[in-house]
Parts: sequence; structure tokens; C-alpha cells
Amino acid sequence: MYKQNLTDNVRVVLSHTTHPGNIGAAARAMKTMGLRHLYLINPRHFPDPQASAMAAGADDVLENAVICDSIDAALEGVVFTVAMTARLRDISIEVKTPRVAMPELLQHAQQHPVALLFGTEMSGLTNAEMGKAQVLVNIPTHPDFSSLNVAAAVQVMCYEFAVASESFVPSVPEVQPARYEQMESYFAHLEKTLFEIGFFTTQKPDRMMQRLRRLYARARLEQEEINILRGMLSVTTEYNARLKIRYQQEQAQRIAQST
Amino acid sequence: MYKQNLTDNVRVVLSHTTHPGNIGAAARAMKTMGLRHLYLINPRHFPDPQASAMAAGADDVLENAVICDSIDAALEGVVFTVAMTARLRDISIEVKTPRVAMPELLQHAQQHPVALLFGTEMSGLTNAEMGKAQVLVNIPTHPDFSSLNVAAAVQVMCYEFAVASESFVPSVPEVQPARYEQMESYFAHLEKTLFEIGFFTTQKPDRMMQRLRRLYARARLEQEEINILRGMLSVTTEYNARLKIRYQQEQAQRIAQST
Repeated sequence: MYKQNLTDNVRVVLSHTTHPGNIGAAARAMKTMGLRHLYLINPRHFPDPQASAMAAGADDVLENAVICDSIDAALEGVVFTVAMTARLRDISIEVKTPRVAMPELLQHAQQHPVALLFGTEMSGLTNAEMGKAQVLVNIPTHPDFSSLNVAAAVQVMCYEFAVASESFVPSVPEVQPARYEQMESYFAHLEKTLFEIGFFTTQKPDRMMQRLRRLYARARLEQEEINILRGMLSVTTEYNARLKIRYQQEQAQRIAQST
Repeated sequence: MYKQNLTDNVRVVLSHTTHPGNIGAAARAMKTMGLRHLYLINPRHFPDPQASAMAAGADDVLENAVICDSIDAALEGVVFTVAMTARLRDISIEVKTPRVAMPELLQHAQQHPVALLFGTEMSGLTNAEMGKAQVLVNIPTHPDFSSLNVAAAVQVMCYEFAVASESFVPSVPEVQPARYEQMESYFAHLEKTLFEIGFFTTQKPDRMMQRLRRLYARARLEQEEINILRGMLSVTTEYNARLKIRYQQEQAQRIAQST
């Protein structure tokens, strides 16, 4: 019934969960839909008896949960992250429905780790966390009451995953998608370079980096492309460094000549 | 976004819920998807602080919940009931997926009350309860762990309802579907008649009635058809009664002649 390689490649990542009962309920929701890799970023209380009580038989999912101290640790090796959002505006990344997002997630999950990323109960994911995803998903709710419980959201997403995987037709992937840490290294390299070349003297760094993240999230970068882009950055820096050296040499020459 | 008449006609019916927290979580799940009519058949603890805590803002749904002492009270006036089942075998009514069941439910909900019926935590709905529905729905789960929490099941069903209602195209209904109590009166009339005519001397009544319920559930009876069927039953009984009277008269005659 379930395609083992697909389910094995899916991580459910809960960021800064406040109530341990929600972690247990999420574990149970996952297991009913055949998913079992739970990652917890700085949970407030875990392990906790309330989590175990709400897991109601999904104890193995809790026992094997990976506790991480950063989103970078939780998403290491992941090539495609779907992040949940309750907001539809003020967001710079694509926002899709669960049903529309699943086929692409499944396509990646054939061969690589993928992640479903859920935020903290009161405020959801931060902009910085959302910026690390390729796709944002909003579970449509009634405009007067959009307060979906995080475990209920996990249930809906895992259900959509299971239903989509039933009718999923694998296709042969032509490319090697960039992994999470390759993307993050690229963004760090890009930001550093933009500082070096003085780009941020006229632009706000954080806002600009969010826009660039959006652009590259849409592009679904391949590993090879990351190499090309980083190569361009390196050459830019070297060019800049050479310019600087030449400028310093010329300046030294001028000083030598004038004395 | 949501079609008010559709959501107004949907009842979420929870039968014999054990844990009040599940009632609260179900109310919250309903409200996020625009549903608000909650019916509780003999809940073990309600109202209860745990229910209110888990409702997390859906207090109005709890406050307006209708507490019933029987399934007949909860389904009065309903023309189409979708009952949840975790089992796929040993069942005599149609079993559909949530996605397949929703369009028919929406079609009825345009003009008449409809119900989503959920069983008790440990054992689900009884066969008798399922026999009162037109369609059974199974939320597909992993074969090794099908233990879906009742509030999680409510979330999935209400979510499927909301998604389906977004793309729903109403059609003009041609018939007046029979209401729940008309169906039940017919089944009671049918059973009584079958007893009277001696049909059950060779058949087990309960099992036979379940089979007949299945047949008429599939048929989606109209009110007019109920009248026709009950008319047939009445004539059968009267014919039977006339036969009996004639037999008694003839017997009396024979006794009179022989003395």
C-alpha cells in the first residue's frame, strides 16, 4: 500500500513546540499515515509524559525523534522543504495548497530526504525559518478562525502525503538537486560577497537576502548550478581582491613617486 | 470563500465520546474549516474544562453543541449521513474515501441537513449506528497503525469538506430525498411486516435487516418512494389480515357444520 522509499525520505520537523501533548499527537498523526522520522528543534518539554500519552501507540516515533538545536541541523541533507504558514500575505516565497505541493515533494522524496516544517504554536515559523524552504504551504481555513492546532496541521499534511503517494507515478529525475546545507553555504557565500563588494551600502541586507532566497527557492537549484554560482562569487571576490591589490600597489607607487 | 448554506447544513455527530479533550479538539477542527453544528450522543463528560481547553477559541461551537440521548435524535431531519469506519471488511454498506464521498454530501447539503458521524474512541461506530448511514467512509491509514484519533479524523473530514466545497458546482436537485426519520420509520414498518407475514421463521431478523438497510442506503430513497413502499407494506398486512379473518371464518363454519 505505502511506498517505503517515499515514506522513509520524509522528515516531519517541528520547530520550538511549546506543548509536549502536541508532539505526541503529531507522532500519532504521522504514524497513521506511514511516516516515522520526527525532528524536533528546541522543544520546550521533551521527552514528557504528556507527549507519550498523546502518542497512544506511536511511542517508537517519539523514541526515535531527533532533537536538534538549530534548523540547520534538522534540515541537513534535505533537498526540498515545505514550510507551513497561516499567513497568505507579506510573504515572498510561493504559497501553495497542500494538494498542489505534494506531487513535487514526492518527486524529490523518491531519491532524497525532504521535509515538512511546522512552526511554534502561537506564532508559527519565523521569516528566517520560512526562508529556508523551497515552498510555503497554507492549509485553507475559515477567515474568521484560522487557529489550526499544530498536530491537526501535521495530520492534514501527512494525510495529503499518503493520499498523493497512492496515485504517485515516479519519473526519472534528470538532475541532482542541491541539498539544504549546499543552499545555505551558497547564501552565506553570496551575502559575504555582497558585503565585500559594497552592495549593501545602498540595500538592507536582511530584506535583500530574503528576496534572493525567494528567487533561488523558485529556481530549485541543482548541485552543479550551486558550483557554478559559487564559482562566480569566488571570481568576483578574487577580481575585487586583485583590484584592491592593484589599487594599493598604485597608491604605494604614487606615494613613492611623490616623495 | 465558504458557501454559508453548505456549511450551515452540516452536522458533525460524535457518538459516545470518552475523552472530553477530543470533543474540544473536534470543535476547534470544525471551526477552522467553517463548520459549527456539533451534536454529541451521550458524551461521557460534557461540558468539561478539558473540552474547553482543547477548543482554544472554538468555545461557541461547544456552547451551541446539541447533546442527544440517541442517534435518532442526533440525525433527525438529516437526508444523508456519512459514517466513519476504520474497518474495510465485514461491512455491508459502500465504503468510500473522504474525497470520493464529499461531492455527494455537498450535493445534498445545498438544501438539506447532512451529517458526518464519528464513533467512540476505542471501538468506533457499532454496526447498528453504521446501518443508519447512506455511505461509510474510511480514511486510509497505514496497515500497521490505523489508530487515528477521533479529533484528527474530524479534522481530516472537515478539511476535505472545505476543500471540496471550494470547487463544488451546485446542480438543481430533481427529487426530495427521504429524511432520516422517514427512513427509520420505513425500516421499522418493514421489519414489523416481515414478522407478521412469517418471513423471519427462516431468516435471522437482525442480519436480514442489515442487508435490507444496505440495499436501501444504496438506493438513496426519495420521500415519494418511501410512501409507495410503505403503501405496499400496508396492503400486504391488510391482505394478510383479510386472509386470517377468512381462515378464521371458514374454520368457525367447519366447526358449526361438524357439530
